[in-house]
Amino acid sequence: MTNPILVETLRGDVVENRHRGAIAVSDASGRLLHGWGDSEALVYPRSAIKTLQALPLVESGAAGHYRLSAAELALACSSHNAEPEHTRTVHDWLLRIGLDDDALECGAHAPLHDGTAAAMIEKRQAPGRIHNNCSGKHAGMLTTARHLGEDTRGYIAREHPAQQRWFDALGDMAGVDMRRLPWSYDGCGIPVIAMPLSSIARAFARVAAPDDLPAARGDALEHITSAIGEQPFMVAGSGRLCTEIMRLTGRRVLVKTGADGVYTAALRQSGLGIALKIDDGTREAAEVAILAVLRRLGALQVDEVEALAARCRMPITNTLDVVTGHRRPAAALDDD
Amino acid sequence: MTNPILVETLRGDVVENRHRGAIAVSDASGRLLHGWGDSEALVYPRSAIKTLQALPLVESGAAGHYRLSAAELALACSSHNAEPEHTRTVHDWLLRIGLDDDALECGAHAPLHDGTAAAMIEKRQAPGRIHNNCSGKHAGMLTTARHLGEDTRGYIAREHPAQQRWFDALGDMAGVDMRRLPWSYDGCGIPVIAMPLSSIARAFARVAAPDDLPAARGDALEHITSAIGEQPFMVAGSGRLCTEIMRLTGRRVLVKTGADGVYTAALRQSGLGIALKIDDGTREAAEVAILAVLRRLGALQVDEVEALAARCRMPITNTLDVVTGHRRPAAALDDD
Repeated sequence: MTNPILVETLRGDVVENRHRGAIAVSDASGRLLHGWGDSEALVYPRSAIKTLQALPLVESGAAGHYRLSAAELALACSSHNAEPEHTRTVHDWLLRIGLDDDALECGAHAPLHDGTAAAMIEKRQAPGRIHNNCSGKHAGMLTTARHLGEDTRGYIAREHPAQQRWFDALGDMAGVDMRRLPWSYDGCGIPVIAMPLSSIARAFARVAAPDDLPAARGDALEHITSAIGEQPFMVAGSGRLCTEIMRLTGRRVLVKTGADGVYTAALRQSGLGIALKIDDGTREAAEVAILAVLRRLGALQVDEVEALAARCRMPITNTLDVVTGHRRPAAALDDD
Repeated sequence: MTNPILVETLRGDVVENRHRGAIAVSDASGRLLHGWGDSEALVYPRSAIKTLQALPLVESGAAGHYRLSAAELALACSSHNAEPEHTRTVHDWLLRIGLDDDALECGAHAPLHDGTAAAMIEKRQAPGRIHNNCSGKHAGMLTTARHLGEDTRGYIAREHPAQQRWFDALGDMAGVDMRRLPWSYDGCGIPVIAMPLSSIARAFARVAAPDDLPAARGDALEHITSAIGEQPFMVAGSGRLCTEIMRLTGRRVLVKTGADGVYTAALRQSGLGIALKIDDGTREAAEVAILAVLRRLGALQVDEVEALAARCRMPITNTLDVVTGHRRPAAALDDD
């Protein structure tokens, strides 16, 4: 199945680039309400499922035991910019559970935030593991392992209970057997499992409409989504679309980016979940696509659409700051 | 017409990203010998035609008058890294023609070369126009205008003779009327014209096999391609595929990248020209695709393929330096 063109960029009046992809919109029962392209294709959700990877942190009692703040819980679900507020919070959190930055087993990379990355170069500071955009997720996994008295060393291995726990939580939410699906390693070193796009959408529909879930699961989701809604900066950071959307919507429209063109959303008002993947992995195209779907589903209010206008139809400028074109939803997605 | 998948990336055993595109392989008469996808689609060639944009610099007598070195001529055809050797050469060249860096009308951007960009941040130096990867092309246009006694101010405007000259040269080589094709602005501020992919391939076939061209054009191409073959570092720089290929092949296999997933090649032995465009604009996919086509056409020798092995099938590593997958030619292009 050839996925449709979802997003295109124009230079002048000519389409210069085209981005195909698939989108699944599901309800909590797993019924597909809208779909573009192959919604059953296996997709690596990458960081777009961090909200669900954080479930064991709350359900194990670790978050309560260590009295995690909303900011810390949001960081556990984040792909953060490594701005000072992000790394300071992760650092202090690790100290509070009796560990330090060295306990993190993710790799180092330069901060996603350009200004922070440049400031580190100016000071000749090398990026550390704490600057990895996933360091909050790793801190969450360490916290649960610590609370349960497990050896935290090697917590990124597929066999470690810290990984097995989220396989169970996510598999349960998505309605799939995670151990029968193909897997590999994610950017930060933990396993990543390829899942049908529709199952990812279903998992987020159950985040949006947790009524039929066991009470403990519903309470944990309530705890996590409240924290994200309160602390949208901690989930991403300055200039980032996830933060911009949730600053406007709070957890009414919960969104999360994943590497290589993935986006997920949980729509609290309609009880729907969305999962999308751009075939070629382009982040900017995924951003334009998720906004277009949110608009089509009526998930954004008029003032929110206005505030995000430059994100819905992104101007492209050249080195002279001349607008040479736009990135916009293609016909298959456009509702104008 | 839906273009075929040319390049794919795997994570573990699962294809994570797919890149579609079109490729035209032409001879000097314009006969299409091989093609993938829609070879008649209008494509902005971006920087992949700089070799031909430099024709007026030689044909006007400017290059001879100012005794341009091979390095300077190669820079006129370059998308350079702004490494010190690149910018110093452009700077000295501008002084020699009685101008300076301020005569450049391209915009500023950080050097493409990470190390040079980081060194500038360390020294708190802001990027200037000379760091624009197109500054050598601009120096070439200024040189011609200067030689012909034109006002160099405003040389980037579509109406300026500095632009009109290359429209004529490229239109002639490609067999199209450049003034009837859609146009917009390129990243550096000069016009960019959307052309049928096949016509771009034809232009490069005539670079590869200039025998039927007027003597003056053939001599100018000889002059330009010799300079590029001698100075492959000046065309791109450290770590760049164009430089790596031409360090091995000289001008036997002349290649040039263009922004948003374009690549061109002129194959001197077979007299063929290649033009390719990745639909989604991904540079890395264009690199894998051009190498796959060069291999299929037998343009690379066994030792050259071996030297470029990691470029033909690019390993993808994560932040822990674990190889998580590969970027490779898809079935449509693979010859293994």
